[in-house]
Amino acid sequence: MIIRIAKNSGFCFGVKRAIKIALEAAEENHEINTLGPIIHNPQMVEKLEEKGIKSIDDIKLVRGKPVIIRSHGVEKSILEKLRQNGTEIINATCPYVSKTQQYAAKLSKDGYQVIIMGNQDHPEVIALKSYVEGEAIIVSDEKDLPDKKLSRVGIISQTTRNIKDLQNLVNVLLPRCSEMLVINTICNATMIRQNSTLKLAKESDVMIVIGGKNSSNTKMLAKISENFVETFHIETASELNADWFRNKTKIGITAGASTPDWIIVEVYNKILECKGNIADKVTRIEDIPGFKEENNG
Amino acid sequence: MIIRIAKNSGFCFGVKRAIKIALEAAEENHEINTLGPIIHNPQMVEKLEEKGIKSIDDIKLVRGKPVIIRSHGVEKSILEKLRQNGTEIINATCPYVSKTQQYAAKLSKDGYQVIIMGNQDHPEVIALKSYVEGEAIIVSDEKDLPDKKLSRVGIISQTTRNIKDLQNLVNVLLPRCSEMLVINTICNATMIRQNSTLKLAKESDVMIVIGGKNSSNTKMLAKISENFVETFHIETASELNADWFRNKTKIGITAGASTPDWIIVEVYNKILECKGNIADKVTRIEDIPGFKEENNG
Repeated sequence: MIIRIAKNSGFCFGVKRAIKIALEAAEENHEINTLGPIIHNPQMVEKLEEKGIKSIDDIKLVRGKPVIIRSHGVEKSILEKLRQNGTEIINATCPYVSKTQQYAAKLSKDGYQVIIMGNQDHPEVIALKSYVEGEAIIVSDEKDLPDKKLSRVGIISQTTRNIKDLQNLVNVLLPRCSEMLVINTICNATMIRQNSTLKLAKESDVMIVIGGKNSSNTKMLAKISENFVETFHIETASELNADWFRNKTKIGITAGASTPDWIIVEVYNKILECKGNIADKVTRIEDIPGFKEENNG
Repeated sequence: MIIRIAKNSGFCFGVKRAIKIALEAAEENHEINTLGPIIHNPQMVEKLEEKGIKSIDDIKLVRGKPVIIRSHGVEKSILEKLRQNGTEIINATCPYVSKTQQYAAKLSKDGYQVIIMGNQDHPEVIALKSYVEGEAIIVSDEKDLPDKKLSRVGIISQTTRNIKDLQNLVNVLLPRCSEMLVINTICNATMIRQNSTLKLAKESDVMIVIGGKNSSNTKMLAKISENFVETFHIETASELNADWFRNKTKIGITAGASTPDWIIVEVYNKILECKGNIADKVTRIEDIPGFKEENNG
């Protein structure tokens, strides 16, 4: 029996950075707010809350305290309101997300009909579209495209989507428009994690994908994995079921960009327990027992 | 037995316009030159020569006479030399080709690495690349792409290429670059003719594609057709072979954008002769016997 952890999985640059910013700010302030969960991992958000970093849903609840902007960014109008109220803003928006917001603004300013590939209910997309002058078209994939001719189209993507979906979208749009500017805003960490998951899924009997149920990039990893092998998306080790591993000898673990290493270690240990504590081999997360990484709160 | 002529075939707007310009110029001048054949149809070019419109290969042969710029356009430097020499220039470049030249210039000016999808030996492409500041990458399809990462890519196409090839090119390039501006410069007449040929090919036992052996758009029609049915690319009726039609009951005819109607009519009549002058039905080119269209020289 072998348990392998995807070579590239867990915290990405943007998440590490956001947590670092939040922890530093919490040290300086007795209590601090984030507008919505800072990252899409409920367990990590809970840990941060213990350190005085509290998620609020409404700027009315700010009450004079500094506000951290979540890694996914927030709507332009909310930022403006916070500024008008004199609220101290600590910006933990992922720099790749900020860059995508700038592209959204520039494309619409340059007269392109902006198309955002993403989930319309996801905070990153809600923030993103607020930077578009005029109406943005939001599509999850090519099947959501309006069935009409378009002239000059500018396409950007939620940073955690799949390149194949973007390729399909572009493919369908090309004959329908005269000019198409595509900015590949899918972040590199996303693409590397997806490739790593795909590789491991092909070599496994069963895959465990760890990450927030509300995490877009984690859901994408699960979607990629289940094309090849039986796949379970969990948030924590407590959800694991020994039946999943019966007669399985090649177990793969991957984790979304907002999943802390300690959760991965817990899941690894629980799987090992399910299999009678015998693994011939474990690959990576620095070969587990008691592995600790930075910025895990 | 049924002989059908593709609904959209033969002269396009740009070819009609070029011939009209040439004929009007020939009426005003005793003799007039075109730099290279004005369109890619040797039979039509020969007819025009009878009216004093002569194709020359070198601007040294201009000898003070006005020069017509062929429908495919010419290199920027040649135009400049003609101007310097004080030669009267009559521009019969297809307006869609001129527009593509402007895009080539603009994309490179805006810092894009220009990629031209086309045949590097085709006069349209040779002219097109002369408008690019710096080096253009010319590819016939996605298989010719250099295997390297690119940053900002601007893509245009020879006006007579196939949208599927452009889609494949874009698909392969997308993960390799950060920004991609695609201007669909495949002209509408080309796309309509290709669709019309595809439809007819699917409904025929054998297809005859008429047009210059040097005509890019005609070769593309033949390529599309032969995916579905036995296809013969000819320039004139004299190339037809009765064997091609033995046991065939659904015969399709299509013609490139530079093929005059009188050649289509000749081909139709010759096929009819091969089949013993019996056709249950003939569809379009205004139901033949003696059909005459304008601008056929």
